[in-house]
Amino acid sequence: MYEQLKQRCWEQNMMLPRLGLVLYTFGNVSVVDRQAGVFAIKPSGVEYDVLKPEDIVIVRLDDGKVADGALRPSSDTNSHLELYRAFPQIGGIVHTHSTFATAWAQTGKPVPILGTTHADYLATDIPCTEFMADERIQNDYETETGRQMTEWFLKNHASPEEIQMILVAGHGPFTWGKTVEKAVFHARLLEELCKMAFITLTVAPDTPRLKQSLIDKHYQRKHGDKAYYGQGNN
Amino acid sequence: MYEQLKQRCWEQNMMLPRLGLVLYTFGNVSVVDRQAGVFAIKPSGVEYDVLKPEDIVIVRLDDGKVADGALRPSSDTNSHLELYRAFPQIGGIVHTHSTFATAWAQTGKPVPILGTTHADYLATDIPCTEFMADERIQNDYETETGRQMTEWFLKNHASPEEIQMILVAGHGPFTWGKTVEKAVFHARLLEELCKMAFITLTVAPDTPRLKQSLIDKHYQRKHGDKAYYGQGNN
Amino acid sequence: MYEQLKQRCWEQNMMLPRLGLVLYTFGNVSVVDRQAGVFAIKPSGVEYDVLKPEDIVIVRLDDGKVADGALRPSSDTNSHLELYRAFPQIGGIVHTHSTFATAWAQTGKPVPILGTTHADYLATDIPCTEFMADERIQNDYETETGRQMTEWFLKNHASPEEIQMILVAGHGPFTWGKTVEKAVFHARLLEELCKMAFITLTVAPDTPRLKQSLIDKHYQRKHGDKAYYGQGNN
Amino acid sequence: MYEQLKQRCWEQNMMLPRLGLVLYTFGNVSVVDRQAGVFAIKPSGVEYDVLKPEDIVIVRLDDGKVADGALRPSSDTNSHLELYRAFPQIGGIVHTHSTFATAWAQTGKPVPILGTTHADYLATDIPCTEFMADERIQNDYETETGRQMTEWFLKNHASPEEIQMILVAGHGPFTWGKTVEKAVFHARLLEELCKMAFITLTVAPDTPRLKQSLIDKHYQRKHGDKAYYGQGNN
Repeated sequence: MYEQLKQRCWEQNMMLPRLGLVLYTFGNVSVVDRQAGVFAIKPSGVEYDVLKPEDIVIVRLDDGKVADGALRPSSDTNSHLELYRAFPQIGGIVHTHSTFATAWAQTGKPVPILGTTHADYLATDIPCTEFMADERIQNDYETETGRQMTEWFLKNHASPEEIQMILVAGHGPFTWGKTVEKAVFHARLLEELCKMAFITLTVAPDTPRLKQSLIDKHYQRKHGDKAYYGQGNN
Repeated sequence: MYEQLKQRCWEQNMMLPRLGLVLYTFGNVSVVDRQAGVFAIKPSGVEYDVLKPEDIVIVRLDDGKVADGALRPSSDTNSHLELYRAFPQIGGIVHTHSTFATAWAQTGKPVPILGTTHADYLATDIPCTEFMADERIQNDYETETGRQMTEWFLKNHASPEEIQMILVAGHGPFTWGKTVEKAVFHARLLEELCKMAFITLTVAPDTPRLKQSLIDKHYQRKHGDKAYYGQGNN
Repeated sequence: MYEQLKQRCWEQNMMLPRLGLVLYTFGNVSVVDRQAGVFAIKPSGVEYDVLKPEDIVIVRLDDGKVADGALRPSSDTNSHLELYRAFPQIGGIVHTHSTFATAWAQTGKPVPILGTTHADYLATDIPCTEFMADERIQNDYETETGRQMTEWFLKNHASPEEIQMILVAGHGPFTWGKTVEKAVFHARLLEELCKMAFITLTVAPDTPRLKQSLIDKHYQRKHGDKAYYGQGNN
Repeated sequence: MYEQLKQRCWEQNMMLPRLGLVLYTFGNVSVVDRQAGVFAIKPSGVEYDVLKPEDIVIVRLDDGKVADGALRPSSDTNSHLELYRAFPQIGGIVHTHSTFATAWAQTGKPVPILGTTHADYLATDIPCTEFMADERIQNDYETETGRQMTEWFLKNHASPEEIQMILVAGHGPFTWGKTVEKAVFHARLLEELCKMAFITLTVAPDTPRLKQSLIDKHYQRKHGDKAYYGQGNN
């Protein structure tokens, strides 16, 4: 029944080791089917080299329960659920512990926008949530992790269509996109931006943010009304 | 006679180069068979690309002598022996000179717990032994290396089931686990945690340790009585 | 008609992922045919693993319009055009967002000449343009990007035959050469020089520039009238 | 006539790209045949992926002239010649521009001995020559480069059998060994030691040298009269 959805979810999960973004089981990808009211997600703790399409778990958007699949879904399932509910435009979500993005998340600080590689996809710093309050940790932790992210967007009047990635302080990155393929792309992009920012700030700690006019120019040439990058099908 | 034990020891030794944890002969893996009163270990100074299962050496737990095998066991054999005697729960041990873990060991300092990737497996800093006293260096050096590690656990009232890795100051890492497969996993995990901590502290030298409530939450969701990570077979 | 030119351009574009210089579509290579009055360049936003020789776009040197090809040329085409017009000796151009070179470009600072690996190819620091003025950003941005580079050479009385690479501040590197093959070589060389300079200055921030006599010696033994490196066909 | 010597020299040259120690043509390996009074060395400026055993050049130890071979020998030939003459015990030499070793050479400082990975092969810091005086640069530069190295050993009363590697300030590393295979091993080892020292000193800039008793212990267990590492054939 959910064969195509599982297959697509599996394929994008398998991209994570190929892109060097996961070690062992430290990551997961999900894809939503809004019409069917479900999303597909990696099972918990299953190694990528034995993962099969039929292992993918189908979870309902309304109550977060398993609709199909023999295995337990990722322990991060409720974080994905929270994001799908708060961000109705998104089609897929990726969570990894990729090296440089996770190392930045451990600092608890946003990744400053330092160049056009960054501005081509994101017109602001890469945000980082606050560290979670103790009482929320005791609560439904994974749902609260999702809320740390969605609340950042609320508080900052930011759009999850413009900022498609965030660092969870002390934990690691989540990325998303209109499609799951774009969510995976953002996960790889984020890792590269974090590596570049590490090098830049180690060489020259006082490097200022990129000037606003350059940020606007690069973001607009790819994503604005008059975008002229690519073959017109972006 | 020890064919299966040698085969398993060989397989896990061969994981080290595949995981990027050894250069030339700079590492070794051992597996214990408590019932038979022996452990299997890599021979000394043999390159991984010519190592064969039958080259693995069998050493007795009681007197540390070779029970079977034509080659000399690893020069680190007595360090393994000391750990097997002091930690009766462990099934395998890994010693490497992997780049980031060894670089941290050279600092003589523990690796602070900075994020949940760390807390998922370890609720404390990664410990580092003291530098060995001169008189002990003149003694049976490899046995004393083992003692530097076991004494750290005694002094700190720590459990080798909860902390399954340690850095030997100025030398490099040792890891272990209930099984040899888990010991190898810990060796790879440790290398990644050391790399992440290096990046985090280079970007933001004042980064504090992860808050205790987050440490507890992550460690418990994987290892506590109510663990809910994985498929229930961890 | 432009079959050979497209083939050569495609082959050198395909070198970028093989040399580890591009992620996704973050780079492009062009080759000029001065006699035919055109240059060949990668199409915009096409992934390297699906790029075919017939996708390469042919652009006219006189008016910058497409002479042949079904796809849109790289969005950086006007930067290439500007360089071909200002530097009549060059045969090919490479633009990448390679990690270390881009991280240096983000600092807005030149890469100091610290060793003979650098001096073997370049007798000065690797230059970095100024950050573009706001009014120019609003203008034809890619043409202005080209001008930022050519103006650096004018202002500094520098020769694009002696300095075959530059960092565009906040953006990334451009390299060129008498042939497109040399332009690609310079792109790879630049990435390595930037990585080495990062390591050197992190270990010893006060490292001075290489002494002038050593710079001259190394540059001359490869590129001077009495060059004696190689087989006499350089 | 020199077929075996050329073959062996070629094989060890081909190890450099496999070990990640060279980019393009930035390195060379030579092997000496003391009885025949010649050494074999890589030709100048020939890429590794087209290098064939018959391209290797044979050079005479007495006058440094080519004894056999159609191509020009490496431009670094006179540096090798100088080392073979001054160090009669060595059988092979490697010169590379490997990333971390070259970055350290650019600092002009020795690499401090920080751990047992280092002490297993070398009981001192990795030496770095002085920067060459201007008048010597004008002289026969490659011979003078060799002399910068041999003079360091004379001045410091050091043995090239105990210290089998050196950094040439501002340039890069040279390594050697009783056999050419050991010289290549030392080149790879040196790169790793330089990478580890970079990480250690970035994390903890005040890290002291390893204590002398540990240095002695590790060096002696591998290289002393009572060495007990390996299978007794080291």
